Amino acid sequence: MARRIIVIGANASGVEAASSARKKDHTAEITLITQEYPGYSRCGLPFVLGGQIPSFKDLTVYPPAYFKMLKLNLKNETKVTAINTKDKTVTAVDKAGATETLQYDSLVIATGADSFMPPIKGREKQGIHSLRTLEDGEKIDRAIKDGAKSAVIMGAGLIGLETGVALIERGLKVTIVEMLPQILPAMLDADMAKLVQEHLQEKGMCILTGKAVEKFLGEEKVTAIIAGGERVEADLFISAFGVRANTKLAVDAGIPLGESRGIKTNARMETDVKDVYAVGDCAESPNIITHKVACAQLGTIAVRQGKVAGTNAGGGYALFPGILASAVTRLFETEAGVTGLTEAAAQRAGIEVVTGAISSKTKADYYPNALPIKVKLVVEKESQRIIGAQIVGGEEVTQRINALSFAIQKGMTVRELAKADTAYAPPLNETWEPMVLAAEMVLMKLR
Amino acid sequence: MARRIIVIGANASGVEAASSARKKDHTAEITLITQEYPGYSRCGLPFVLGGQIPSFKDLTVYPPAYFKMLKLNLKNETKVTAINTKDKTVTAVDKAGATETLQYDSLVIATGADSFMPPIKGREKQGIHSLRTLEDGEKIDRAIKDGAKSAVIMGAGLIGLETGVALIERGLKVTIVEMLPQILPAMLDADMAKLVQEHLQEKGMCILTGKAVEKFLGEEKVTAIIAGGERVEADLFISAFGVRANTKLAVDAGIPLGESRGIKTNARMETDVKDVYAVGDCAESPNIITHKVACAQLGTIAVRQGKVAGTNAGGGYALFPGILASAVTRLFETEAGVTGLTEAAAQRAGIEVVTGAISSKTKADYYPNALPIKVKLVVEKESQRIIGAQIVGGEEVTQRINALSFAIQKGMTVRELAKADTAYAPPLNETWEPMVLAAEMVLMKLR
Repeated sequence: MARRIIVIGANASGVEAASSARKKDHTAEITLITQEYPGYSRCGLPFVLGGQIPSFKDLTVYPPAYFKMLKLNLKNETKVTAINTKDKTVTAVDKAGATETLQYDSLVIATGADSFMPPIKGREKQGIHSLRTLEDGEKIDRAIKDGAKSAVIMGAGLIGLETGVALIERGLKVTIVEMLPQILPAMLDADMAKLVQEHLQEKGMCILTGKAVEKFLGEEKVTAIIAGGERVEADLFISAFGVRANTKLAVDAGIPLGESRGIKTNARMETDVKDVYAVGDCAESPNIITHKVACAQLGTIAVRQGKVAGTNAGGGYALFPGILASAVTRLFETEAGVTGLTEAAAQRAGIEVVTGAISSKTKADYYPNALPIKVKLVVEKESQRIIGAQIVGGEEVTQRINALSFAIQKGMTVRELAKADTAYAPPLNETWEPMVLAAEMVLMKLR
Repeated sequence: MARRIIVIGANASGVEAASSARKKDHTAEITLITQEYPGYSRCGLPFVLGGQIPSFKDLTVYPPAYFKMLKLNLKNETKVTAINTKDKTVTAVDKAGATETLQYDSLVIATGADSFMPPIKGREKQGIHSLRTLEDGEKIDRAIKDGAKSAVIMGAGLIGLETGVALIERGLKVTIVEMLPQILPAMLDADMAKLVQEHLQEKGMCILTGKAVEKFLGEEKVTAIIAGGERVEADLFISAFGVRANTKLAVDAGIPLGESRGIKTNARMETDVKDVYAVGDCAESPNIITHKVACAQLGTIAVRQGKVAGTNAGGGYALFPGILASAVTRLFETEAGVTGLTEAAAQRAGIEVVTGAISSKTKADYYPNALPIKVKLVVEKESQRIIGAQIVGGEEVTQRINALSFAIQKGMTVRELAKADTAYAPPLNETWEPMVLAAEMVLMKLR
């Protein structure tokens, strides 16, 4: 009998899991169940809002033809209401209200995460948007088309800032409110975040750091917030406080969560219940350096976990090596990236580090239109191994992050980086690669 | 008594050696002797010709103030005529014809390389340019300003092609003649070179491969060449056959050359004669992968060797780890890069390899202006380690080359690369990084 594989969720990690299972097992019955619009790139939402991409539907990465081609049975607009791990069944209700119970041999939970709203006074009022789903994006787009001229975005993480940039590009006055004293607190150290903040402010973004949102004001609909004692009015309010793993189905089914409150998994992305896998924003995996578990909530990690779980669910064998959490963003003309641990994260993890940073340029000094770039390295003091890097610059940040990601994953020491062979041409780089110069800066402190 | 350090040559590797010696020894008497214009970036010459950089003097990376600041004694327009390694002296003649003999404790030979002209009939005729020195650049620039409308460039290596692009940008009709059946034969495999060639041809460059230059025609001055039986007329002829290590001084002084006919060195960049170092285009070092010695003749290698030799000459201790020969170029809107061995070079070295290539895009598929990119990996079959990579694409090639250079230097296997953590954002990359996809292609062949 054909193996029955059910995947709950049909975005980045879910589709990747189903596709990988199909590669391993050509006859399996593979079913994806999703309530959300399937097969689109969530990461692309801010760029539709910003106008770079014409419509939300353009974010569809896996169209119906893809599912058909791989013989993946996609159940749209269908909500899974229960998992029974004893009977190995999933109960689902479609939009017509019809309930169905499906049998599985392997189950992949890819239920993602939901926008998180802290317990702020007045949060029950209308008009507080988030930007998690395609529908969320459409609602914000409508509000702009309906005449919104100003926006308050609560949270200066990646989504908050990318959305802020998009709204400025659409002509809105944007205020970002962040409780912590810096922007991008989960991604960058304060010194690097400052560079990004200055750029955003130059572009007209109003950024209020160190100010918690205390209250939503207005009658039925929010018209202003109080943050750090200050009143900020706006036409549009977007909650970007972050996301929380969507684990309700798993918890109800008795599938254990881990220390980070994500679904606990092993290296095969299998939960504590046999034949049940969890992947993507709802699943936790260990960090490669600290071994501390976390929900990475990055598209790159989601597809990697999905591939591993799908391969295993399809009868193959694959291990997920863990999270380094390399991430990058483009905000107006500045790119910012991170891989491994920030200095702050290393300190929180009790790791003794030495850091070094260098400001350089992206082309030969004499070549026109060279842009500034700053590289910061975080090095574990005892082993002299690189354990983290942050880069802020006008261009060519992403692949430098990848280069340092590879270096970290292979245990490169800062001394090896200072000696490393790099490529150069006047229109493309400096003779001495900035990453190499940053390594020199660390070495000077280690001597 | 202060240590006396003499450096013959004052460009990339020479200045780096002198600067590094100064860092180690604050009281040393450091003298650089050069006949050539000092302290400029040779790699920038094509971009002055192309008009991106206003004047040749703008290529000066180390102005007189730099030498003054570091207390480096620069003897300009002075030719070293002999080295006596027994007496530890150098004999030099200045432009006035005055001869001087200088004593050294440590000597660094950074005599570079000269343009190479094969024994072609008629090569004694006037009007054959090369592009090695600033003066060469000025002569070509003058010829263009004097009305040259067409050019033949002999050799389709980096210098030949970069010069060809520059001349097309200046409005000339350009024909490239290459003896081998592909362009960039030392840098790319034929399949990757083809992509670059197509782009150049689209931009109007006439490329004749597999055609050796047989004869220069014309009275006193060259007016045409015969290549592969074909006659090509032009106003301007540029020899870009390659360069040869300038080793005459070393040979005359009894300093041994190595297998590649460059000056033989150890890991400290010291020659077979104690206290005599050789660096840059005249010096050979082993390749990191094959251990076979070569003169890399790359700016990045020159400065690294210079730094090591200068540190040692200044009483410090440093080792040069060897050559991986990462290199990159931008030709119109295409970038091409290499690190480690090409498939052809690996085969010549007797290394059994498996390769894999993938064509992808530089941004998310739905994001506007994504450019094509192709990544090819060369993997040693037994160890499954990556030993080479080539990339041709519209953008973001250089730092991918650096990423793979780091991977190679740390012995990353193709399996590790297929699992590696990479960074992504829709305007900056695909979710599945092309390097990772290329690794998957190799793995499919290894299974």
